[in-house]
Amino acid sequence: MNLKKIGVINSPYKTRAKAPFQGRHSSEICEVEIFEDFLPGLADVEGCTHLILLYWLDRADRSMLKAFPPHDGKEHGVFATRSPNRPNPIGVGVVELLAVEGERLKVRGLDALDDSPLIDIKPYFPEVDSTSNATVGWRK
Amino acid sequence: MNLKKIGVINSPYKTRAKAPFQGRHSSEICEVEIFEDFLPGLADVEGCTHLILLYWLDRADRSMLKAFPPHDGKEHGVFATRSPNRPNPIGVGVVELLAVEGERLKVRGLDALDDSPLIDIKPYFPEVDSTSNATVGWRK
Repeated sequence: MNLKKIGVINSPYKTRAKAPFQGRHSSEICEVEIFEDFLPGLADVEGCTHLILLYWLDRADRSMLKAFPPHDGKEHGVFATRSPNRPNPIGVGVVELLAVEGERLKVRGLDALDDSPLIDIKPYFPEVDSTSNATVGWRK
Repeated sequence: MNLKKIGVINSPYKTRAKAPFQGRHSSEICEVEIFEDFLPGLADVEGCTHLILLYWLDRADRSMLKAFPPHDGKEHGVFATRSPNRPNPIGVGVVELLAVEGERLKVRGLDALDDSPLIDIKPYFPEVDSTSNATVGWRK
């Protein structure tokens, strides 16, 4: 299972210390550049208000199976956390699509580090991708 | 960018023709098996009501940049569709976690084909992963 780099993310976050814990809490605009070979795949993307971006967390430690997330500071298995350090460090970001300018997408709500490899773009559909249910989250 | 297979999905869908277009429309239960090397990462996953599963669409055609989605039957760029045929065929499934039994997770709401390689498990957090906004979707 080999991934192809389909583009690159330009973000204001140069290091993890400067990135927000979650992009949804940020109003910064990021620019996503899609490489020429993959441009035909962008047709009609401008019709989407929101996208799911998959990107490679290239500065992550893939050997980690435990993490200390910020919300409680306790040790958890990585699969119960959103830590970037995990066996397959793929970031999933739900972003607002502001503009498509040729091979560049302007998006808001991303916490990717600058120069992260882009892996995939999908339209975000609330009826498929969201669960608006008061009982969702951590079990009480 | 090489992915590790961290587990495998057992689903009732043996072929794409028998799978639902989106798992969220299915009440079938799927079983996800995590391989032994990655089991420490599962600690505390049982605390999550919903998970995001990333899996490899191993029967997809990676050369496709256009697709004809079922909703309108017209050709679109793959990045404006959820077609499994795309350069990096990674499925993103938001599922309900029903039970954790040792190395097995029972989940509902997945449209993965049987025997799909599992890539990642993340907790689903509505405040990060969902956009409950009436204007989300296709632009009018």
